[in-house]
Amino acid sequence: MNWKEAVFHNPSGIYLEGTPKGLGSTVRLRLRCSQEAPITGAYLRCAPDGEQEMHTGYAIEPRAGWNCRWWEVALPLRERRLHYRFYLSTHEGGYWLTASGLVRYVPTDHTDFVLLADQHDKHWLDQSVFYQIFPDRFCDGDAASNVRDGEYKLSGKPVVARRWGELPNVHQGGREFYGGDLQGITQKLNYLHELLGVNGLYLNPIGTAPSSHKYDVASYSQVDPHFGGDAAFFEMKRAMEERGMRLILDIVPNHCGEEHPWFRQAQQNPHAETAEFFTFHDHPNGYEAWLGIHSLPKLNYSSLKLRELMYAGADSIMRTWLRPPWNIDGWRIDVANMLARGGAVQMGHKILRGMRRAVKEEKPDAYLLGENFFDASAYLQGDQLDATMNYRGFMMPLYHWLTGHDYNAVFERQWADRYPLSGADLEAQWRYWRATVPWAITRQQFNLLDSHDTPRLLNLVGGDRAKAAVARLILFTYPGVPCIYYGDEQYLPGGRDPDNRRTMNWDESAWDHSLLHEWSQLIRLRQNSEALGRGSIQTLHHQGDTLAFLRETRDQRCLVVARRASDACRAIPTWPAAVPDGTRFREFFSGAEAVTQSGHLPIPEALTQVWQQL
Amino acid sequence: MNWKEAVFHNPSGIYLEGTPKGLGSTVRLRLRCSQEAPITGAYLRCAPDGEQEMHTGYAIEPRAGWNCRWWEVALPLRERRLHYRFYLSTHEGGYWLTASGLVRYVPTDHTDFVLLADQHDKHWLDQSVFYQIFPDRFCDGDAASNVRDGEYKLSGKPVVARRWGELPNVHQGGREFYGGDLQGITQKLNYLHELLGVNGLYLNPIGTAPSSHKYDVASYSQVDPHFGGDAAFFEMKRAMEERGMRLILDIVPNHCGEEHPWFRQAQQNPHAETAEFFTFHDHPNGYEAWLGIHSLPKLNYSSLKLRELMYAGADSIMRTWLRPPWNIDGWRIDVANMLARGGAVQMGHKILRGMRRAVKEEKPDAYLLGENFFDASAYLQGDQLDATMNYRGFMMPLYHWLTGHDYNAVFERQWADRYPLSGADLEAQWRYWRATVPWAITRQQFNLLDSHDTPRLLNLVGGDRAKAAVARLILFTYPGVPCIYYGDEQYLPGGRDPDNRRTMNWDESAWDHSLLHEWSQLIRLRQNSEALGRGSIQTLHHQGDTLAFLRETRDQRCLVVARRASDACRAIPTWPAAVPDGTRFREFFSGAEAVTQSGHLPIPEALTQVWQQL
Repeated sequence: MNWKEAVFHNPSGIYLEGTPKGLGSTVRLRLRCSQEAPITGAYLRCAPDGEQEMHTGYAIEPRAGWNCRWWEVALPLRERRLHYRFYLSTHEGGYWLTASGLVRYVPTDHTDFVLLADQHDKHWLDQSVFYQIFPDRFCDGDAASNVRDGEYKLSGKPVVARRWGELPNVHQGGREFYGGDLQGITQKLNYLHELLGVNGLYLNPIGTAPSSHKYDVASYSQVDPHFGGDAAFFEMKRAMEERGMRLILDIVPNHCGEEHPWFRQAQQNPHAETAEFFTFHDHPNGYEAWLGIHSLPKLNYSSLKLRELMYAGADSIMRTWLRPPWNIDGWRIDVANMLARGGAVQMGHKILRGMRRAVKEEKPDAYLLGENFFDASAYLQGDQLDATMNYRGFMMPLYHWLTGHDYNAVFERQWADRYPLSGADLEAQWRYWRATVPWAITRQQFNLLDSHDTPRLLNLVGGDRAKAAVARLILFTYPGVPCIYYGDEQYLPGGRDPDNRRTMNWDESAWDHSLLHEWSQLIRLRQNSEALGRGSIQTLHHQGDTLAFLRETRDQRCLVVARRASDACRAIPTWPAAVPDGTRFREFFSGAEAVTQSGHLPIPEALTQVWQQL
Repeated sequence: MNWKEAVFHNPSGIYLEGTPKGLGSTVRLRLRCSQEAPITGAYLRCAPDGEQEMHTGYAIEPRAGWNCRWWEVALPLRERRLHYRFYLSTHEGGYWLTASGLVRYVPTDHTDFVLLADQHDKHWLDQSVFYQIFPDRFCDGDAASNVRDGEYKLSGKPVVARRWGELPNVHQGGREFYGGDLQGITQKLNYLHELLGVNGLYLNPIGTAPSSHKYDVASYSQVDPHFGGDAAFFEMKRAMEERGMRLILDIVPNHCGEEHPWFRQAQQNPHAETAEFFTFHDHPNGYEAWLGIHSLPKLNYSSLKLRELMYAGADSIMRTWLRPPWNIDGWRIDVANMLARGGAVQMGHKILRGMRRAVKEEKPDAYLLGENFFDASAYLQGDQLDATMNYRGFMMPLYHWLTGHDYNAVFERQWADRYPLSGADLEAQWRYWRATVPWAITRQQFNLLDSHDTPRLLNLVGGDRAKAAVARLILFTYPGVPCIYYGDEQYLPGGRDPDNRRTMNWDESAWDHSLLHEWSQLIRLRQNSEALGRGSIQTLHHQGDTLAFLRETRDQRCLVVARRASDACRAIPTWPAAVPDGTRFREFFSGAEAVTQSGHLPIPEALTQVWQQL
């Protein structure tokens, strides 16, 4: 038993006494270690306003239910973003405890623990399970609003009406339409909420736009008539509110479509009021466009007027949708990684700070989520995004461990390599990426197994349903907010875009009802577990093919076991988490009970297990 | 021979073909590995404007003098701060090469290599060796200007005139004066430049102020009459320019002294124009002061007027001194870590960006150096400081390795622990800290062994002259700009402030002339070596008590060996640096020659060695 595996802190649960309530409030932070640790002194190191302070930790009394020693430090919150680490003086010399683990030498501040002075103790996100819908492909509730074959042209080619169930045609992309709409979503709310059990929806864009994906925005303020228009939205929203369901919409502030009136006017007249919203090199046809795609002119946030309209002004687009009668619960910002950036102009952080200010003024508990396939930590320090679509920090390492396939890049531009990732490297990667953002942000990261931008779950695990079940287990038990991409609950297959945007199959006779039940079980497990919703995480085992981690709040422990293949592991060490011997756990799926002994919890061979402390 | 130790890249030398010349220019970056490395493909990963790009590396021809394989990538500079890393596809799976080394899993961007689009190929700093002078204690050139005993009061107590050579009195601190002045410095320029050989001076503040340290600024624009006033400055500057010597002054923009007219006016009249330069909670006596020290009122950079006066305006303080007739070469910014920060007000980065803009507009090759004892990486990304006083990234780890004493904090508030630091941990710490700033910044970091804020070199090594010599060797051979604290060349002793501010002994009969010669040898070695001045660094050995690293430019190699104690190491591996067998080196101190064989350079037992390739 190596004492170094049992030193633990997290800015939550029993390790954080008192709720941060802005600058000037005081909290008490606690450090836990095993009884045997040769620690002679513990100190908290912080640097408010840039100047180092060392705070002596005081040993505190043992607590029932924990087999360990504790140190406590009272800390006044003198910065909104307060970063700190611990120094441990031991018989073996000094160690630093950071959010990414113990190090022997003085670390930089990059992996410090971070407390946000306004972080939530509880939040509606803790109990949320989202479901992502690509509206054209989910359910056709009203055939009258469908796009008709050849109804108009998109980039010079006629749009195509497809029949529900036909496979998407890669050569037609956003030009083909299946007729899904908001009326369809409203009709399926019972399925989503009562049967499956999700309590939040994230919709891909619904504003008026010529393509079926609607990222080529023609209106930021009106719902596309082919999706049922504003009326269908209000009906859907009313039905969702009856069920207590939350709604996140997709906004595209990085660019609009070439049919947007702002761009039309700018193209027609270089002196138009909206000309400054764009970057013309050679008016009218030479302009900055997203990734060079001419139909998606990039918006230029040097324009104060654009900022006013998009987010800052009293009746801005982002504000309006958060208010009645729209009343949405948050925004997913498309291409947040590239927003307001381009060569010499690097305003990304400034604009996102402004968007956050506007959104939180309008609705303090709104969710501000950004698309970012890469390292988004600079956007995730509490002053900009609440979360990113957690491809890089969660999903890609998970699939690499499960399948040996390293999807490094965005899936559109496939770039991958095959080699096994050890459990230790999965753990190290997850831990390091978590360490680069405040815990309060990790807790609300938007975790997913796939999306409209990636191949689907079933394809990513090569059709292996056992592995899909392991991925799913981890989705619902890892820190962050889980989201299911529509159809995954039926293991709808799908490769790269547009194959990942197939239509839902509403023929119930074709459903796998036991599979649906499995998803629904996990959703409810997650929603009903405080430990899974907001507990800290400590990895207890990452040898061979088995991974085990503990989620923990002050009052609950939940131990998750996931195996990518059968292996010989039949006991998980619980001593590093200070769980006393004789602690009883019950397994969620089987109902089996087990008791910790000699610092371990005995476990059976099942690939997926969730042990809840009794 | 582990191929992983021989994978190397640095944004300089033979690894960087073409000089970055702003946005849009293209450079070629090269990666080096050993002949045996199982690498099947190398890719450069960058993310201009936030979007990932993978660039395929192409194998290029062998080059004379290098026993290795190469890959090359042509990269357009699409961002001013372009960060990148390499992906290596190997028979053992994938590896990422970052500035902090090889990792198995996808790293965050934090340790990426960084190329600045305006980084220098060569700079006067490459050949600079600075000498720090605390003016009151260096040389009394004109007794007529000395502060007289009791001449005035400081914080209510009379100032004290001390006799040259008496030890500073801790109870008198900044209230005691020895008479050192700029005339004295001018008189000693032959000593400094011709005898010792330094070509740059960094002076602690010389503006008018009541204390002897002059951090309690009463004037930002006039030289203290007790230091000889402006006339003495111009004479000193002229004499320095004759010798081609550079000059850095110390500016205190974080706070002024209570006698500064800005503060006097503000205290007298809450409606004074300068009242907004300060933060009064309770006028006139309740105001923000640096670390609560009442005599040092903190400046409030919310004031646009203050920004204009300090740096932004056409005739600002910071600009004026960079112009004739003052014509200084750069600024050392006092307390840069706390500047423009305090609770809810966090403008540090904004103000430092503004200071950089002003300074570089005035003099593009000026040196902008900040005081920061801690992790300053957020200030060192190319848009703010050129360097910090490199206590944390260089000096403290060095002493920890040498002496087993971990000076973690500022020395004023002593906080340290004793335990041995292994060579591996020293190397890892240095490497990691270097990795968090662009190489172009590492190259110009202000390295030091002590200062007016720390105990002196001799005290820090516990009087052990052999260890002092090792520390000194590393100062002059590590990447960055070396600075000698006045008197260290004679091993002047000194503990904590004010003992570290003893007077220089100008009695030549008491000097250790051979010691002076040793310093001077190292200074000239440094000034004449391109490899030491701007070469990349690769650690070749860190076992036992021996540390060896290679500094390398396209045309030069310089291998440094430092031992904290005698050990058995008699050969340094040179194969990880692709040095072919049969390469001849000459040792700088002894003149001995040696030839690489079987991938190693044979070495003798001396504690300090510098091997230059012939």
